[in-house]
Amino acid sequence: MSSWHTSSLATHSITTLALARQVLECCRTLAGYSENDMGTTRTFLCPAMRDCHRDLGSWMEQLGMSVRVDAAGNLRGVYGGACPNAPRLVIGSHLDTVPNAGAYDGVLGVVLGVALVEALAGRKPPFPIEVIGFSEEEGVRFGFPFLGSRAFTGLLEADLLRRKDKGGITVEEAIRNFGLDPSLIADARTRDPAVAYLEFHIEQGPVLESLDLPLGVVGAIAGQSRAVMLFRGRANHAGTTPMHLRHDALAGAAEWITAVEHEARSNMGLVATVGSIDAKPGAGNVIAGEAQATLDVRHSDDKARLEALKRILARAGEMGTRRGLTVEHEMRLNQRAVAMDTRLVEGAEKAIGACGIKPHRMVSGAGHDAMIVSGKIPSVMIFLRSPKGISHHPDETVQLEDVELALRAGLRFIDELETLA
Amino acid sequence: MSSWHTSSLATHSITTLALARQVLECCRTLAGYSENDMGTTRTFLCPAMRDCHRDLGSWMEQLGMSVRVDAAGNLRGVYGGACPNAPRLVIGSHLDTVPNAGAYDGVLGVVLGVALVEALAGRKPPFPIEVIGFSEEEGVRFGFPFLGSRAFTGLLEADLLRRKDKGGITVEEAIRNFGLDPSLIADARTRDPAVAYLEFHIEQGPVLESLDLPLGVVGAIAGQSRAVMLFRGRANHAGTTPMHLRHDALAGAAEWITAVEHEARSNMGLVATVGSIDAKPGAGNVIAGEAQATLDVRHSDDKARLEALKRILARAGEMGTRRGLTVEHEMRLNQRAVAMDTRLVEGAEKAIGACGIKPHRMVSGAGHDAMIVSGKIPSVMIFLRSPKGISHHPDETVQLEDVELALRAGLRFIDELETLA
Repeated sequence: MSSWHTSSLATHSITTLALARQVLECCRTLAGYSENDMGTTRTFLCPAMRDCHRDLGSWMEQLGMSVRVDAAGNLRGVYGGACPNAPRLVIGSHLDTVPNAGAYDGVLGVVLGVALVEALAGRKPPFPIEVIGFSEEEGVRFGFPFLGSRAFTGLLEADLLRRKDKGGITVEEAIRNFGLDPSLIADARTRDPAVAYLEFHIEQGPVLESLDLPLGVVGAIAGQSRAVMLFRGRANHAGTTPMHLRHDALAGAAEWITAVEHEARSNMGLVATVGSIDAKPGAGNVIAGEAQATLDVRHSDDKARLEALKRILARAGEMGTRRGLTVEHEMRLNQRAVAMDTRLVEGAEKAIGACGIKPHRMVSGAGHDAMIVSGKIPSVMIFLRSPKGISHHPDETVQLEDVELALRAGLRFIDELETLA
Repeated sequence: MSSWHTSSLATHSITTLALARQVLECCRTLAGYSENDMGTTRTFLCPAMRDCHRDLGSWMEQLGMSVRVDAAGNLRGVYGGACPNAPRLVIGSHLDTVPNAGAYDGVLGVVLGVALVEALAGRKPPFPIEVIGFSEEEGVRFGFPFLGSRAFTGLLEADLLRRKDKGGITVEEAIRNFGLDPSLIADARTRDPAVAYLEFHIEQGPVLESLDLPLGVVGAIAGQSRAVMLFRGRANHAGTTPMHLRHDALAGAAEWITAVEHEARSNMGLVATVGSIDAKPGAGNVIAGEAQATLDVRHSDDKARLEALKRILARAGEMGTRRGLTVEHEMRLNQRAVAMDTRLVEGAEKAIGACGIKPHRMVSGAGHDAMIVSGKIPSVMIFLRSPKGISHHPDETVQLEDVELALRAGLRFIDELETLA
């Protein structure tokens, strides 16, 4: 067993600062549990996940929580409340990672949940607290995300269990190989009434840092549209084809990329990205006959997103007509925005304000377990500032002071919830 | 031996139309000589080149020409003039091809040379005519072009002979493997005085077709600048990074590509092309941290080209400063424009005009053997219309009527040359 949670046992009046240190130490220890030598890589129910369950489960048990790993591989610890049957507070995030990940994406939200229980120092809120470490959120192993929170909310369709990883192993087999029983997957679904789901997560973006704020409250998770664009012109000799006789697919794509950026810049709250491009034949001295580019459009307001998408596609069409290019697009994703629970968002803002921090309500541009859980349980997320916005990278970090503030805000949120519940 | 030049032996008064048919048939026969199954592929001194030499050499001999293959693999046939020591007319182009080539690029200029000798029907101009089929122009096998015309003009530096192909075979070894003696390469250099070098070539572009003209006279071969641009920004999450906090390398590259196109469009005679682009990490949901793009700028006026290049690079720099991107460029080529000989250009225009065609003087955006030969011999090129501008492709073609007009213009040019010489 590692050292990061033994020291705390000596006292129940540990300071939030000491606890914050412990949180960071714990995250770094868990980052050492990897399925390969590529930094931290921990996909759905890989052997290294067992090490996380052991460490966190042991800490939970020392805090008097009842611990189990459900059939979907979610680690779940319950801290009994003063009224054991009162609708519970669920605090969680995910324990899986992307390849060569940082130490905080997901993990931090789980560790903060356990630390908050420790910070209660034996005090029993009126409701039970369930801390959950979801087994899968990133979608790396099976190319499909949120397996853990889907099972928790009863949204894990049977055909998902038959999805295979690159090695041909199904979700079902992966569960069995981990020593769990996939036939009991329905039992992973929570049946206990819950008053709230709280997820702490690093922002994974630069907004809080740019505002000089340690914490932010997520009001909504943005909806996303993703598409692949194909521009077809005519490949030709770069030296012998005068400008006015060209049908340059890459020049057309470039004009459109600029228009995409312009659309997003002039549309509050919209982000639009062309992250990948390919031009064919792709020789320096040949005019591109074909260009393919990705499109990613996000907004917290679905109508605003779809209208922007429409304008962006229309711009591609106009450009194509003008340049004599054919333009096709294929939609790959159209995911609605998910609003967090208004009362909980206000409660979280109040809690943050009580810690002396200006409450900042923001949109999450990335998907999170809260997106799934909110379908069943009123949900809210608290973001912690991401230094330099770095995430999905070993350089991902979080500041000690911000973690301490998150703990203090979490305790206040529990107090707020007592008045709400 | 194939059939395309046996029929012509029966008569010396063959019509230019029949000869034009024979030219096309010959080109198509030679297109069947390939080093592999990939359509027509004939690189420097591959075995298939021997078949070309055999067919063309045999035709030349039947016309009373003296034929040899020099140590650089150039096929050379001399038709004695009325004054054997008078400065000669050299007519030529190249016999090598790009991979999966068309039937006319290069080859047509050599075949037209032989056909012109046949069209003389035994008549002896005051000067000898040397028809040359250069062994290498495309630069495919050794990544370096014009080996044939460089040897012919004495510009084949010794270290070029040590250049290796992908199989590790040097130019020298390739010459030896073909049964030639690389130690005699200096003898490939022409020592005979020459009054003119005439090269027929397909345009490989859409200009003549767009003007509804069968032929054009090349006044200059454009100079070229080639560079690779590197834009460096910051890779970031496409969902969590607001527009105003981005340093999107691909959006920057796109803005610059549009500026490159604008520069070329607003600058008469300039062509500028970005034919290849790569964005990293290249995922649809990640803002590109890096983008690399090629740049190709050509103009018949070196000053105009270099000034445009300067503005294009300056635009990249301004864009980078504004967006917080670093911009680097690496020059890969800076090749001067080459003017054709004014008197010969005028002579060619007169010859074309005498055939009832409006003379059109144009710039060759592509390099040709004439670019090298003109360093030693006054040179001119006549372009034949390229239907749809297609070249370097099996669909490359040329029209029978245009070939006939080229033959008629060639005969007129020889007449013009008699007055000039």
